[in-house]
Formats: sequence, C-alpha cells, structure tokens
Amino acid sequence: MNNNIILFSINLTLKTWQQMNTVEIIRKKRDRIKLTAEEIEYMISSYTKNKIPDYQFSSFLMAAFLNGMDKEETSALTKAMLYSGKIIDLKSITGVKIDKHSTGGVGDKTSLILAPIAAAAGINVPMISGRGLGHSGGTLDKLESIPGFRTDLNLSEYKKVIKKCGAVLIGQTKDIAPADKLIYSLRDVTATVESIPLITASIMSKKLAEGIDGLVLDVKTGSGAFMKNLEDAEALARSLINTAKSFNKNVIAFITDMNQPLGNYIGNWLEIYESIKVLQGEVKGDLLELSKTLSGAMIFLGKKASSIEEGIEISQVMINSGKAFEKFLEIVKLQGGSVKIIENPEKYPKSKVIDNIISKEDGYLKTVNNFEIGMAALELGAGRKTKEDKIDFKAGIIFKKKIGDFVKKGEIIAELHSSSEAKIKNVSSNFYKLLEFSDQSVIAPKLIKKTIQ
Amino acid sequence: MNNNIILFSINLTLKTWQQMNTVEIIRKKRDRIKLTAEEIEYMISSYTKNKIPDYQFSSFLMAAFLNGMDKEETSALTKAMLYSGKIIDLKSITGVKIDKHSTGGVGDKTSLILAPIAAAAGINVPMISGRGLGHSGGTLDKLESIPGFRTDLNLSEYKKVIKKCGAVLIGQTKDIAPADKLIYSLRDVTATVESIPLITASIMSKKLAEGIDGLVLDVKTGSGAFMKNLEDAEALARSLINTAKSFNKNVIAFITDMNQPLGNYIGNWLEIYESIKVLQGEVKGDLLELSKTLSGAMIFLGKKASSIEEGIEISQVMINSGKAFEKFLEIVKLQGGSVKIIENPEKYPKSKVIDNIISKEDGYLKTVNNFEIGMAALELGAGRKTKEDKIDFKAGIIFKKKIGDFVKKGEIIAELHSSSEAKIKNVSSNFYKLLEFSDQSVIAPKLIKKTIQ
Repeated sequence: MNNNIILFSINLTLKTWQQMNTVEIIRKKRDRIKLTAEEIEYMISSYTKNKIPDYQFSSFLMAAFLNGMDKEETSALTKAMLYSGKIIDLKSITGVKIDKHSTGGVGDKTSLILAPIAAAAGINVPMISGRGLGHSGGTLDKLESIPGFRTDLNLSEYKKVIKKCGAVLIGQTKDIAPADKLIYSLRDVTATVESIPLITASIMSKKLAEGIDGLVLDVKTGSGAFMKNLEDAEALARSLINTAKSFNKNVIAFITDMNQPLGNYIGNWLEIYESIKVLQGEVKGDLLELSKTLSGAMIFLGKKASSIEEGIEISQVMINSGKAFEKFLEIVKLQGGSVKIIENPEKYPKSKVIDNIISKEDGYLKTVNNFEIGMAALELGAGRKTKEDKIDFKAGIIFKKKIGDFVKKGEIIAELHSSSEAKIKNVSSNFYKLLEFSDQSVIAPKLIKKTIQ
Repeated sequence: MNNNIILFSINLTLKTWQQMNTVEIIRKKRDRIKLTAEEIEYMISSYTKNKIPDYQFSSFLMAAFLNGMDKEETSALTKAMLYSGKIIDLKSITGVKIDKHSTGGVGDKTSLILAPIAAAAGINVPMISGRGLGHSGGTLDKLESIPGFRTDLNLSEYKKVIKKCGAVLIGQTKDIAPADKLIYSLRDVTATVESIPLITASIMSKKLAEGIDGLVLDVKTGSGAFMKNLEDAEALARSLINTAKSFNKNVIAFITDMNQPLGNYIGNWLEIYESIKVLQGEVKGDLLELSKTLSGAMIFLGKKASSIEEGIEISQVMINSGKAFEKFLEIVKLQGGSVKIIENPEKYPKSKVIDNIISKEDGYLKTVNNFEIGMAALELGAGRKTKEDKIDFKAGIIFKKKIGDFVKKGEIIAELHSSSEAKIKNVSSNFYKLLEFSDQSVIAPKLIKKTIQ
C-alpha cells in the first residue's frame, strides 16, 4: 500500500475530540502533509501538560523522524518548545548578548576559554550549559571540578553575575524549555534522537530562552561527534541557522573537526587545567585556534569587530594582555569557585593513579577512534554511566599526540588518570586498539571545515 | 540528514540490556534494516508480557507503518502474534477445516450463508468472528439478534458444536492472539491502523489460531470498504495469501465490490432475515452470487469439488435441496438460538418505527456513499458509537435499489428501521444526499473483480 494514501479510519468517529485531534495530527505527519504552527503548538503544549500520552507522542516523533519537518515546521516546533517555559529577560543588561553552542565532542572545552575572552572584549555571554552525555563531556561537570564553583545559580544571581563581569555559566533551570527535557527523555528510548529538526528544536529552544541577541554555532563532525560526516553536520548547521534567523537572531556556524580530541586534555579538571593554560597564553594549537575563532565570531556578532578575523585578533589581544584570564578568575570568584586553585593549578593534587600508554611502534598517527577515547575517559571516571554515578573530577586522559604526528616506539602517547587502579587497568588494556599508525606521512584533518552565515 | 544513516547514539551505552535491545530493534526498522524473526518475536512477546512500554511499541509501529515489512517479516509478525495465545487443536475433528475471512463492509452477511452451505457440503467451518466496527457490521452482533443465540461458547462447547454439525460461529476468546487485541488498541490511537503488514498479521494471527487447513479471503474494495481502491485491496490480498502460504495453508482470495451494500438488508436482524431468504432459495442477486462463490471456493479447498466452479454448483445444490437451510437451523439450535423464529421470520415483530426514503426524481442510480450508508445504519441503532452502547437489533436499512437500476420519482429507495423516532428523523433528513442519479444508463460495478490463488 502506498503509505501516503489516506484511508478513512472509522475509528475516528468513535473518539473524543481531544484524541481525534491528536490522531489526526499524527496522521498528517505520517502522510507527509505539512503541519500548521497551531497543530505543532497543540502537540507540544498538550504533551507538556500531560494531556497527550507518551505512546501518541512517540508515534508522532517517529513520523517526524522519518518524514522530516521543513523550515517552518522546525521553527514552529522550536517556538512551541521555547514557550513551554520562561524566556529570560536580559533587557536590564546593557550591551549585546551572544552565546555559543557546540554539538559536543571529546575534549571540547572552548566554552571555558571563549566566554572570558568575549566578556573581556565587551560582549555579554549568558551561557546555559549541559552535563556530560556518554562520550561527550559537559561544561557544567567541568566547572564543578573547581572546588566551590556553583552552576546552580538562581535567576537573580545569574543576572547579577553577568551584570558584574559580562559572563556567567550555569545549568539549565526547570523553567527553561521544560518541553525539551520531557521530549528528549522520550526520544532517547524510542530511537528518535538523530533527527535534524528534532535536534534543532531541542538546541534552539534552550538557547533562545537565554534572551540572547546572537549565537555562534560549533557543529562537530567526525568519529567523536554525533554527526559522523560533513554532509549531516552541514545539514544540521543550516537547520540551526534557519531557525535562529526565523527568530531574528544573528548567527554564524562553523563546521569543525572532531576526529581527534580537541586540545590534549580530556576529563573535567584536566580540561579546566588546559583552559587555564590557553587563557594564560601558554598553550597553542587546535584548542586555541578554535576558541579564538568562536570568540572572534562572537565579538563580530556583538559588533565589537568589523569581521570574524578582527574578532580573532581581538581575542588574541585579550589573551596576551591577561584580560581574558583575569575575566576567568572573576567568573570563578563570582560563582563561588576557588580562585586560589585556578591561580595555582599545578599545586592542586593530581589523580591517585596515572598510567602511560606507550607506543609499540614507529609511525605517523593516522586515526584515533575518538568516540571510544571519550568512552575511555568516561570509563576512567570522567563521566557517568548511570544518572546516579558520581564523577571522579580528576579522572581522564592526557592525549599527547595529534593525527599526523610522528610517534617513536617507546614514546608516551597518552596518560590515563583515575582514582581507581582497576579502571586504569581496564582502560589501559584496550587503549592501544583505538589508534592506527602509518608508515607514510599523514595529513592532519582540517580543524575548521566550513563557515556558514 | 539522510534518515537511513545510522548514527551512533551514545545513550545506548547507558541503558539496561532490555531497553537497549528494544531501542536497537526500533532503530533497525527505522533505518529500513530487515528484522529477524527473533527480533520480531522479542518485540511482540515482550509487549504482550508488558515488558515493553506502550511508548516504545507505538514508535516501533510507526516505523513499521512508514518503512513497511516484507513477506518474511510479516510472516514472523503473524507467527509471534499467533503464538502470543492458544492455537485451537481441532485434530479430533475428522475432515478438512476451512474458514472464510472478509475485510468487512456494509450488508456483508455472507458468513451466515456460506457456513451452513459449506458444512452441508461436508466441510468443517470453525468460524471465529468479530463485532461491528463503525460503518461495518459484525457477524457476532448479527447472530446475537437471534433470541437465545450464544456466541460465547467455551472451547469444549465449540468443539462439540463443530463435531455435531460441521460449523460453529463464535467470538474471539481471550486465549486467541491476545497480542492482536493489545496492539490493535494501540494502533487505533497512534495513526498506525492502515498498514498492510500490520493488518495482515492482525487478521492472520486470529484465523490461524482456529486450527484451520485452508482459508478463503474476501477483500472488499470501494466506498464502503477499508481499502478504497483496487490496488490497495490487491496488495492486502497478496500479503494475506503470502502469509497464509508461509504457514502451509491453502488459500484463495477474491477482490469484491463494496461500492454499494451487499444484498439489500443492513442491520443485524434484517441481515439474518435476508440470509434465511437466501438459504431458502427465495432471494437471488449479488448476495447469493458472492456467498456461493465463497462457499464454492471453500468446498474446492476442502477437496469436495475439483474446481471453484464445481464448488459453486454444489453450493446451489445445497440451497435447492434445503440442506443448507437445515444446517443453519441445526447451528442455531446447537448454539441456543430460537429455531422457531428462524423458521417463521415473518412473524418476528419488526422495528417500531419505519420510514421510507422516496425518490425525488427519475434516473439511474449512479453512486451511493456506501460508507455513510453503513454509518446511517449505525446511527439508527444497528451499531455501537461507544463500547458501552447497546445495539438495537432490529434497526437498520432495507436498501431496495442497486447501482444501475432505473428509479422512478416517488418510488421507495430505502426503508429505515429503528426503535427511535428521533434517530429515524435524523438519518432520514440526510439520507438522500448519499445518492447520486444520472440521466444516462449506468453500468453496475462488477461484483467479483479478481480471484487470486
């Protein structure tokens, strides 16, 4: 049977209006008929108010997954999810508010670096972040590895911090896009996660609730990213851009490489440590480059530079002048974190157990299974396997090589850090399999693959 | 994003095996990867045992609806649903057991006619039937309009009746394909009803549970059928045949017309009445023709005839000799029904209120909105609007004309029967709109459109 034909289901005549309406909307999406904004709003608000059961909504999600949603539908979905909760009113904060969102990856700590840079350059950065999810770390968990650092500020504390120092980094509150939380939980167990319109609405409903003027997007692609190939990453980027624009937000997206860890440090405190070093101008490489690109774009969107390039230059000036690191200290202090530890990170004790992964051969590092490297960090204690798990904040990996590097036999490729000997042993025995070497020289993957405006 | 790409969902690593397995199977169907029989069996048995929540199963149903299921998957689905319950063991009954299934329509009372004909010709007919559903009547409701007739025989009574007279007509017991009942309820509210593989498994799991050797299928097409066009009806017929054959059952399918009521009587007692008249050889026309064709095919499948045509001749002999009507009386008696009323149906009082629909013009009857005629009968009391509604057994319509008939102004086109004046009034005022007349002569639709073996 042609699935698009609409057969008259006699059952409909026997139902209440409420049920009928829901079934009719599912049927339309199933039959590839474009939904109106009202229909989408009805589905989201009814589901959020518990007026539509999970089993109807999951059937709707699968129909949306398989048949897609166009620009207008995605925008309407985002709007409905956004208005399921509160939009933070930042009108009392003078100046432009720009945030960044990354689709997540391994060692991706740019938020910790670009927020102080952009704030130092005069941009307000009202950042609401997430927790780690599987192989991919979360900004909140990283910040909480700083003793005393509070990510659970209430709205008035949140506004106070941004007013004082131009940046704030907190977790999602209950008021923000509650529909997203509900829907995500359902998507997670009904195989409806990897859908561009659904991902777009999930991301954008939360970001738009921050009350921002503009947004810089970092869409990752590669073995450690959710979007494995460039085509999918670009499709997601374009969907995010379209949606942001439909809300009159300024937006720039970068498609960036996630075929290897970003920077060298993976794990919560380890990433704070590396971020400090970048902010202090001591560490260069891919992490610095990407952080500056993103903060450069934020500075440009915030009209403090006439181009992304100028924004990048300003970013470097903020690092060189010490203003970016100063701003970081200010944020840490205002959010209750230990400034002493940030000022003297070397003195903060390391993990109890450290093990080295030694190269068994001479060769060029060709590929790393970046997803599994993220999972190895989680295994060492840097992430949660269940919601109840406690994070071992100092656990993680210092991955010392980049794709294209020549590695000598006997050289240290990576350090594994954990509080548990057993975990180290477990990860250590499988780690080498995640690497592939070549006799031939290897071209490093391009970090910034595309800029879309 | 190409929906077929399989993105690695990190969430999976965080789940229990049970959940993971379910999500993985939904994902496979979502990504158009063929499911194994084990995977389908896992889904059905887990759902039936309440180990998979509705929201996962409905997402699976929508994926199956949109991506389809092939022959083997449909057969595995049928098997899993069949084995969710009991298969009736009819080995103690000597002789071949053949049933008929119709996809339902308006005035479709062939079961009442062909069961006694086939039984009279030496075929065992162990028939498990359903209730009315919306515009479409149900054999059980019709039988229950005979005072005393019991459709709720238990298994041992069921076997006793068929042993004694070669035919039995009961309702579905709890033991038979319980998965189907559960799944159908969920499909009904998640816009996943009109799917050929799902319809196939629903029908065949119940029919195969009867312990039959062969099956004759009557797949209706037209305005009063679930399959509005020939193409869909044929696709369903082929799917049903493939599935029956995969269980080594002999099967013949007919695609038959449902653009107008079958016979002239619609409504429970009215249809019993007409069936009596056909069995007594007093009424000819489309109802007799189709009933004989179906019983002819049953007699052929049961090897009591060398062709369908010979089976049809034998059917006519059974009517002419009075054996078919005798067999009907025997069934009624054994199932507790009033034989007296069947023998003297004219004496059984009619509906309190009867109204005639009079032609307002001269012309050839061109089309009837057969779905709405079925709904009108329901409205008069012949069906249930909610599960709790009681049926008015004598309510219904005597539709006196056939498509192609020339109708004179002032002629009675239909009689409406009901116990409620208000209902008659309500239906009467809208009835004429369901008819279309033409100045030109009209070719009657072909009754039996196709035979598929």
